Amino acid sequence: MSGPFDHLEVGYDIPARPGMAEAEVQTPCLVLDLDALDRNLARMAGAARAAGMRLRPHGKMHRSADVGRLQIARGAVGLCAQKASEAEAFVRGGIADVLVTNEVRDAAKIDRLARLPLRGARIGTCVDDPANVAELSAAASRHGTVLDVYIELDCGGARCGVSDAAAAVALARTVAAAPGLRYAGLHAYQGAMQHIEAPEDRRRAADAAHARVRETVEALAAASLAPEVVTGAGTGSWPFEAASGLYTELQCGSYAFMDADYARIRDSDGSRLDRTWDHALFVLTGVMSAPAPGRAVCDAGLKALATDSGLPFVFDRPDLAYLSASDEHGVIADPAGALRPGDRLRLIPGHCDPTCNLHDWYVGLRGGIVECLWPVSARGKGF
Amino acid sequence: MSGPFDHLEVGYDIPARPGMAEAEVQTPCLVLDLDALDRNLARMAGAARAAGMRLRPHGKMHRSADVGRLQIARGAVGLCAQKASEAEAFVRGGIADVLVTNEVRDAAKIDRLARLPLRGARIGTCVDDPANVAELSAAASRHGTVLDVYIELDCGGARCGVSDAAAAVALARTVAAAPGLRYAGLHAYQGAMQHIEAPEDRRRAADAAHARVRETVEALAAASLAPEVVTGAGTGSWPFEAASGLYTELQCGSYAFMDADYARIRDSDGSRLDRTWDHALFVLTGVMSAPAPGRAVCDAGLKALATDSGLPFVFDRPDLAYLSASDEHGVIADPAGALRPGDRLRLIPGHCDPTCNLHDWYVGLRGGIVECLWPVSARGKGF
Repeated sequence: MSGPFDHLEVGYDIPARPGMAEAEVQTPCLVLDLDALDRNLARMAGAARAAGMRLRPHGKMHRSADVGRLQIARGAVGLCAQKASEAEAFVRGGIADVLVTNEVRDAAKIDRLARLPLRGARIGTCVDDPANVAELSAAASRHGTVLDVYIELDCGGARCGVSDAAAAVALARTVAAAPGLRYAGLHAYQGAMQHIEAPEDRRRAADAAHARVRETVEALAAASLAPEVVTGAGTGSWPFEAASGLYTELQCGSYAFMDADYARIRDSDGSRLDRTWDHALFVLTGVMSAPAPGRAVCDAGLKALATDSGLPFVFDRPDLAYLSASDEHGVIADPAGALRPGDRLRLIPGHCDPTCNLHDWYVGLRGGIVECLWPVSARGKGF
Repeated sequence: MSGPFDHLEVGYDIPARPGMAEAEVQTPCLVLDLDALDRNLARMAGAARAAGMRLRPHGKMHRSADVGRLQIARGAVGLCAQKASEAEAFVRGGIADVLVTNEVRDAAKIDRLARLPLRGARIGTCVDDPANVAELSAAASRHGTVLDVYIELDCGGARCGVSDAAAAVALARTVAAAPGLRYAGLHAYQGAMQHIEAPEDRRRAADAAHARVRETVEALAAASLAPEVVTGAGTGSWPFEAASGLYTELQCGSYAFMDADYARIRDSDGSRLDRTWDHALFVLTGVMSAPAPGRAVCDAGLKALATDSGLPFVFDRPDLAYLSASDEHGVIADPAGALRPGDRLRLIPGHCDPTCNLHDWYVGLRGGIVECLWPVSARGKGF
């Protein structure tokens, strides 16, 4: 059977087909403004090139091999991932160089990571514990592969990572001596500073982080273990890493899509960060009820939008405010009573990474027409 | 190739196979304690029977046709769903009676809803606007089907639904006259009161909601439109609906699994609600780093746990506290330094519904052994 709704008649749901108008797209779904995405990718690629730095965007943000390939086509050296199964999904999607910016501590996960180079990919991971070095080395040796291993330094985020330069040196020595592993450098990412609103406060946090990185890089060099790559940075802090003289590789992710939380922080000239980076990601939602004066209800709630970093805002509609989310409803304040059931809104989610992970598809739009439908290749890949 | 990890070698990841020990299950994943689930299902089925009420559990909580079939085997009349595509997934999974407790306002969604009875299922939906009645009627007539239609009353939640008895009567009259639709009753659910901690405060909110329901039921009866079914109630409020003399059907969902937010509220005897209902749902997580005294990091963060209703707690481990979540990390306070990489923890998520929606599989455990692996049948079914 063929008809206007036959894209819904497969085993899984797809929200759109190429060639459709935006008004026909099924809601709620992720929408990409492909022109805005292109601008963001070009801008960051140019900035990294101008700074003489490698760019390895964080794939945990988009979880899309298609977006990753676009980033690599513009000069990125590969992608970051956060989990072994996510790295595997990227390799399956044609990404040939993936760094897991995280510890992998489970026999099954280490085994799958150590097998990935057999598919022709260069694979890196991080360590903060000598016992993990031994596990990784045994797995790589078993499969006859080589893993790039980075020492993770806790430079202020108080999450994973060794705490000081001496521990980093001891661990790097262990890695350098381990069969099947290549000591590849230092991973130092301070996530907590990315979302500090004022640029001068972010700079202070970056300075504190970089003091720890500098001390560690110097100690490694003094031990003849100078890191070939020092990797880190996010969308909120990368100009500081680029200017530090310490880092050689940027891991920014959110710049490609943007979100409401990043939009609120201020760039160095004091303007909102969504003046620097365009909103390319939206959750398209439909109004399903307008039951009382001033109130409308849309079909995107907690299962379509991550709210850990705040509620979404309604793009290009300062007359509307997203007030509250329940599982499958969003309540919209509509003081002028402008909305009717069936109306469409574009929401800017509070936090792009976990929002993208809720969906199976990206609908790519250009000029109001669906140009592509990309799977969220690594959605749910948490192992 | 066959080996300890070959469950990871399919196109999608499965976290376990039946027969495995819990220690072999891949983390993070959803785990069900099947004995606890059985106790919860039996207890609610017995309570509904004792109250002489129909039970139609809300499937948006678990999104699992397998759990739904267990509920129906114990006497439930069917499931509730929140979206058309979710109802479709339930029908595909063998659930023959599904009520969408929500408005469906899009041509494609209405079309798929109106086609579902062709698969042998009884399908209901809610309305709060006469224009929607016309859309549903046209679609059902086109497919030669009949949809059960309920009038949704806003009884205090300030979300969807008509605001007063007069509007309900007018809308019911429209439904009763519409070809292809059967006027099935009244839907009145007050979500906001479910999580009020003190039982006397919840009772006051329920009394206020039920006053609006009573007025509406009486007005409908006076207009010869007495509702055959009055449906609503949640895990926090159902004893009040059961005692109201108004409701004929309970829609509770969370009772089956429980979560941290419901655990905190108090039952009528003042005890925590997780004394009444057992924790059957857990996010199993592995420790991946223990980098500093007092701090461990686990592999379940925002992509494995919904945090809209608060952070998880660590089950059966009062010595530990889950402090903060980032995308793929959870930071655990471990003052005694008890945790080592590789250790497993069971987390009770803050909010069960959106947490289940993050995962593809339920791992059913009994006596420490994997008994079943159930898909989250309607995960991501937001259309």
